[in-house]
Amino acid sequence: MYQKIKQTIFQLIEPSKGNLTSKIFDVIIISLIILNIILVIAETFDVSDTARAVMNGVEVVSVIVFTIEYLLRVWTADMLYPQYRAVKARLKYIFSFMALIDLIAILPFYLPLIIPIDLRVLRILRVIRLLRIFKINRYTHAFGLIAQVFRNKAAQLISSMFVVGLLIIIASVLMYNIESTVQPDAFSNALETMWWAVATLTTVGYGDVYPITAAGKILATIIAFLGIGMVAVPTGIITAGFTEIINKEKEDEKEDIHYCPHCGHKLDK
Amino acid sequence: MYQKIKQTIFQLIEPSKGNLTSKIFDVIIISLIILNIILVIAETFDVSDTARAVMNGVEVVSVIVFTIEYLLRVWTADMLYPQYRAVKARLKYIFSFMALIDLIAILPFYLPLIIPIDLRVLRILRVIRLLRIFKINRYTHAFGLIAQVFRNKAAQLISSMFVVGLLIIIASVLMYNIESTVQPDAFSNALETMWWAVATLTTVGYGDVYPITAAGKILATIIAFLGIGMVAVPTGIITAGFTEIINKEKEDEKEDIHYCPHCGHKLDK
Amino acid sequence: MYQKIKQTIFQLIEPSKGNLTSKIFDVIIISLIILNIILVIAETFDVSDTARAVMNGVEVVSVIVFTIEYLLRVWTADMLYPQYRAVKARLKYIFSFMALIDLIAILPFYLPLIIPIDLRVLRILRVIRLLRIFKINRYTHAFGLIAQVFRNKAAQLISSMFVVGLLIIIASVLMYNIESTVQPDAFSNALETMWWAVATLTTVGYGDVYPITAAGKILATIIAFLGIGMVAVPTGIITAGFTEIINKEKEDEKEDIHYCPHCGHKLDK
Amino acid sequence: MYQKIKQTIFQLIEPSKGNLTSKIFDVIIISLIILNIILVIAETFDVSDTARAVMNGVEVVSVIVFTIEYLLRVWTADMLYPQYRAVKARLKYIFSFMALIDLIAILPFYLPLIIPIDLRVLRILRVIRLLRIFKINRYTHAFGLIAQVFRNKAAQLISSMFVVGLLIIIASVLMYNIESTVQPDAFSNALETMWWAVATLTTVGYGDVYPITAAGKILATIIAFLGIGMVAVPTGIITAGFTEIINKEKEDEKEDIHYCPHCGHKLDK
Repeated sequence: MYQKIKQTIFQLIEPSKGNLTSKIFDVIIISLIILNIILVIAETFDVSDTARAVMNGVEVVSVIVFTIEYLLRVWTADMLYPQYRAVKARLKYIFSFMALIDLIAILPFYLPLIIPIDLRVLRILRVIRLLRIFKINRYTHAFGLIAQVFRNKAAQLISSMFVVGLLIIIASVLMYNIESTVQPDAFSNALETMWWAVATLTTVGYGDVYPITAAGKILATIIAFLGIGMVAVPTGIITAGFTEIINKEKEDEKEDIHYCPHCGHKLDK
Repeated sequence: MYQKIKQTIFQLIEPSKGNLTSKIFDVIIISLIILNIILVIAETFDVSDTARAVMNGVEVVSVIVFTIEYLLRVWTADMLYPQYRAVKARLKYIFSFMALIDLIAILPFYLPLIIPIDLRVLRILRVIRLLRIFKINRYTHAFGLIAQVFRNKAAQLISSMFVVGLLIIIASVLMYNIESTVQPDAFSNALETMWWAVATLTTVGYGDVYPITAAGKILATIIAFLGIGMVAVPTGIITAGFTEIINKEKEDEKEDIHYCPHCGHKLDK
Repeated sequence: MYQKIKQTIFQLIEPSKGNLTSKIFDVIIISLIILNIILVIAETFDVSDTARAVMNGVEVVSVIVFTIEYLLRVWTADMLYPQYRAVKARLKYIFSFMALIDLIAILPFYLPLIIPIDLRVLRILRVIRLLRIFKINRYTHAFGLIAQVFRNKAAQLISSMFVVGLLIIIASVLMYNIESTVQPDAFSNALETMWWAVATLTTVGYGDVYPITAAGKILATIIAFLGIGMVAVPTGIITAGFTEIINKEKEDEKEDIHYCPHCGHKLDK
Repeated sequence: MYQKIKQTIFQLIEPSKGNLTSKIFDVIIISLIILNIILVIAETFDVSDTARAVMNGVEVVSVIVFTIEYLLRVWTADMLYPQYRAVKARLKYIFSFMALIDLIAILPFYLPLIIPIDLRVLRILRVIRLLRIFKINRYTHAFGLIAQVFRNKAAQLISSMFVVGLLIIIASVLMYNIESTVQPDAFSNALETMWWAVATLTTVGYGDVYPITAAGKILATIIAFLGIGMVAVPTGIITAGFTEIINKEKEDEKEDIHYCPHCGHKLDK
């Protein structure tokens, strides 16, 4: 009986099972998330006291629903990872990326009851919960492919970001030494100058800080051109990642190789 | 006799038939479109009453020509889709992308006769009708290839845009909470702050709004770097799409596979 | 005797022959071009009358040398294209891209003698003559490859630029109608508004014009995101072009195919 | 005995040997480098005299450690390049990229003892020494791959940068002639105008200088669009480089080809 109920609940909340009640459950949760996002944005406007009372009501209801959902997911985690013991399966689930997001989405509501810190702005992270939309529609494969590319190429992307970090430090210290004497406000110290380096390297170029000396302009030119490279390298890495996966899929198709849809291991023909 | 006239008209307005009178017809229509675009732009200048009267005259003549052309296209739609019944063929044509554009291009002229709304600015959508230029010249294949890449990769591009959307929402709410106290005018609410998020993520960086606090600059730095990724991911997707099509064409060439030029289905050797 | 002199001169000015005197000749011409570019830039500064007199002297000497070189190249053009008759070879050479640049580089000096127009600024096009540097060093292949990619993909790149053109026209007219009432100076007419559309689509974002109304900001957001696509599409096209050429070279290597180094035609094994 | 000590020291300072003491040594050096970078940045702030005294102390200790390390590396260079004679091996090491960086990182401290020039800002180049982090972790391969792509495609990247250089010169001289009469301050000479050309071509667009005449805006439009190409071409080159290396690795795997991990030469099966 206990197992039966647990099984039913698991099928309800686990989107990949794909039955109708599960889909309706997902649509309700997603609607509630969207409503909450609208609320978080709406709260930044000046609204009447009545409206704010309604907002608070919706917030309380949402958090209760999200909390129950979270507890149910933790409870049924041993059915999600049947290969582990119950405790280990639950711990594994609690520390998974999506579960942590779920927790961060409700925790800001309970925290002020314990410690007097207002972290309610973190509620906006509920937006990330919308990624579960990809689990119930035809974009699943497309989104999985993009995530796969980033996982495959993580080491290369981090390496290129590391080099960019070094570049920003060098550019900031050099630029501070060049410009701080003529523009002591805009380039007040090397940390402040990093703001210029970031705006230039990413080619955003707000225009709030820019060099005015000849030496500063030459350095900015070099940094701006390296900024071009900064777009080119990750683009190259990511593109190669997409091409690689597509080629692999095509080869597998030719050689009639199939993978287990559950664990991803290669299957014997 | 009726069928004969219809056939002649269809051959005249359908560019893919490629006979001379059809080409002349296309050149006339395209010239009229270009003339109309120049007029729409010219109307934004201060012009004399005489000039405005001439413009109105050209506009009336254009709309009459475009209306007749539109009606003829609807009438001959059953020859474009011979596989459907006459009514279904016409409905299918009316709701096709290019036919809707054609309708939007003439409707703003007739609407004020019925309801008093001035939608004449929509006439500029006649510009889209210029895409038919690709039907009469040697760029047909190139344009078709670009359109093909976007169709093939639509799911991936939409997925990446969805993630960008989430990013903009998160960035805006966080940035509003960081900057609104020191810059209440520029960051007056979360929706206004989205304007900053868009300018930063797309690396446009107009410079009308930018953070001035340390926390705001750190958040802006993260967003600007994610903006690099925002260029890299669609570029990777689109590049992989181009490479894929080119490789497919090459393989088909090798294996001597041909496709029906009309419906795109594979042909037996 | 006449043929002998012509042969010697041709070997001297034609860089691909690769003998030492020819290389010295190239170095002299390139040095003179660089000297001229420095002069054109230097002239934009306030300089003393003496300096200006020296500059004019160098200019006169340069033009004389370039003119003689140009005439010699036209004279020996029949040795460059031995397959054509003398007159046709010379006409073909005169209307080649590099020869037209050579002509434009010297013509501004002679024109004022005939018609009183000051086109001396066109002298800066002598910069393009520096491309001949690629003919005398190890970057020949690399530069040829880049040029090849642009030639191969010209139709696709032009198609994408055409779509961008339509986009700019639509965006400008719509934005003019949205913003001109509140910012009549910045968005004074649809042509002026194009300046905003270009700055946004290319993500340059100078920040001299930007929308301030909600509708304007929404339109600008759409345009800025399409700007991302505007980088992605040509990048995809060009990348596919590079990959294609590299794969072709590799396959040719495998299949032991060689091309004539002079005309580029496939050679029998 | 002398050889024994030298061998021990070499194993200590050479990270690729991978024993524990060598790793501890690396961690100490890297920590010292990071401490120094923090110091260089901290020095740009207004700090108390006590703090500055502490900083100077750390600086002196660091330079002593770095100097000893540098001398030991030069001394043991003949074990790094066993194929060369001792003197040649040391000279080869001294003029390697990383050794020159090491020298530049300590030289600014000693130079003022000899000649009175303050080059202490060059200490920031110690940041580059952090690249050795890639030698002790799992990102070695990823970083090596990125470096490999740049080496393989150096000729093409330099060629495209050369064309960009010509473009900047032409754009600057033309723009100077167009805008200098109406904006003599912003476009005071062709060199100053290059600052505008760089900001536009790299799409940074600070907004401190921009054309206001119609002709200037048309030229800026052309340059901004060429700027798109400027991102596209290096991206295409670099992407092709990544794809090429990945394909090569895959083919080698298929054909069971192995390379010597020390010199990179192909090994017989």
